[in-house]
Amino acid sequence: MMNANVNFTQERPFDLLNKSIGKQVLVRLKNNLSIRGKITSFDAHMNIVMDGAEELDSSGELKAKLGIILLRGGNIIFVSPT
Amino acid sequence: MMNANVNFTQERPFDLLNKSIGKQVLVRLKNNLSIRGKITSFDAHMNIVMDGAEELDSSGELKAKLGIILLRGGNIIFVSPT
Amino acid sequence: MMNANVNFTQERPFDLLNKSIGKQVLVRLKNNLSIRGKITSFDAHMNIVMDGAEELDSSGELKAKLGIILLRGGNIIFVSPT
Amino acid sequence: MMNANVNFTQERPFDLLNKSIGKQVLVRLKNNLSIRGKITSFDAHMNIVMDGAEELDSSGELKAKLGIILLRGGNIIFVSPT
Amino acid sequence: MMNANVNFTQERPFDLLNKSIGKQVLVRLKNNLSIRGKITSFDAHMNIVMDGAEELDSSGELKAKLGIILLRGGNIIFVSPT
Amino acid sequence: MMNANVNFTQERPFDLLNKSIGKQVLVRLKNNLSIRGKITSFDAHMNIVMDGAEELDSSGELKAKLGIILLRGGNIIFVSPT
Amino acid sequence: MMNANVNFTQERPFDLLNKSIGKQVLVRLKNNLSIRGKITSFDAHMNIVMDGAEELDSSGELKAKLGIILLRGGNIIFVSPT
Repeated sequence: MMNANVNFTQERPFDLLNKSIGKQVLVRLKNNLSIRGKITSFDAHMNIVMDGAEELDSSGELKAKLGIILLRGGNIIFVSPT
Repeated sequence: MMNANVNFTQERPFDLLNKSIGKQVLVRLKNNLSIRGKITSFDAHMNIVMDGAEELDSSGELKAKLGIILLRGGNIIFVSPT
Repeated sequence: MMNANVNFTQERPFDLLNKSIGKQVLVRLKNNLSIRGKITSFDAHMNIVMDGAEELDSSGELKAKLGIILLRGGNIIFVSPT
Repeated sequence: MMNANVNFTQERPFDLLNKSIGKQVLVRLKNNLSIRGKITSFDAHMNIVMDGAEELDSSGELKAKLGIILLRGGNIIFVSPT
Repeated sequence: MMNANVNFTQERPFDLLNKSIGKQVLVRLKNNLSIRGKITSFDAHMNIVMDGAEELDSSGELKAKLGIILLRGGNIIFVSPT
Repeated sequence: MMNANVNFTQERPFDLLNKSIGKQVLVRLKNNLSIRGKITSFDAHMNIVMDGAEELDSSGELKAKLGIILLRGGNIIFVSPT
Repeated sequence: MMNANVNFTQERPFDLLNKSIGKQVLVRLKNNLSIRGKITSFDAHMNIVMDGAEELDSSGELKAKLGIILLRGGNIIFVSPT
């Protein structure tokens, strides 16, 4: 969904991902799961590679240790530096 | 979904986001959750970075303090300045 | 979904939105909610800014006063001038 | 989803909408509702403006009189002249 | 979803629709319904116009006579000549 | 979702479909159904024409003989040569 | 969803798939299933061919041996080298 006329703000949303490289973030997914881990890379589709990723259930309890994962951007609701 | 022939109105919808930079908004999401916080940036996909974000349940009660988040535009139903 | 060969009608669907600027409309959303308010702007994705917006439940009862909102076009089923 | 190599048939699907301008149609939507009314315009996304629109429940009973509506094409399952 | 490097087969999927013009087909839809009728036209989005269309429930029983319909391609699971 | 910078592997995923032309495959669909049959053609959207297609329920039991079908790629989870 | 202005990180998410060619990965799908197997190829849509693929239920138990499969990228939540 491109809107060529939009007035872009000085700071852009993806800058937050850029600043989070190498740091711990929490990613909330559409299926009520969350993934916590360190961002090592991302692309323009919000595909994200995380290191030391852990899957949390909806109450924040550790559900599974995932290690390195490539997360598809399309399933993400939000990303939050922790 | 582009419609090249549409008569654009003088004021455009994204102007509301522009005017809301630095201000508190309420974002309603598809999964019945709402996020309240201050918009710090947005892009043409309605991806929004919020500061001091709080997650509210469907009755408006505080569910979790999220801090800084990058919210994917695709999950948004509406954004409302508060 | 573009179909370059389609015979466009003289009057086009978005003309209805154009004529509704400044007027009260009812917007039905995918999640069974409706929003009633005055359209102040829209774009080619059917993103709509409304003023004095009110959220109605599925039986048409007032559920919440929203004030000014930017509604994402992707969640809309129909827009109806009232 | 474009397929440049497809052999288009002489008559094209949107011709049916063109021939239905000013006539009564039944539109079946994804959420099990149907809308009956007169088509006044449409575009290449199958967005349709209807006049005298009536919402019918899944058993075909009148549920609400809607008047003029702009229906988003993305929610349509089929359109049928009546 | 285009993949420019794919080795296209001699015969292409849409050829089946082309050969089915004027013939009876069964169309299975995402909402567990099926439509049976004669294809009169189609386009590259798999939008299909059918004549003498009948809606069948999930056990194949006749549910409604629809007559002429324009079916949106996006809801189709498969099309089968009968 | 194109990513122009990706390092493509020598062998590409669609090669598997190419090698499966004329052979039996199992196709798992989003609605928990599976289709078994012989691929006769496919395109870049993973639309697939199958011959002698059979619909299987979630436990693998034969549910219906479908014959020739054009399956829309968008509903496919995976394709497996059998 | 392209964002031309994003500052790409040195390392890109698809590099993880590239480094996983010939190795075992776990793929989590939207329908709560997981597939374990060896990646033999992938493309820019995250379509993946796996060898020796096994379907696991939500508790990680082996549900079915699938052999070679072509998995559509659109159903993937994440890919994890094991």
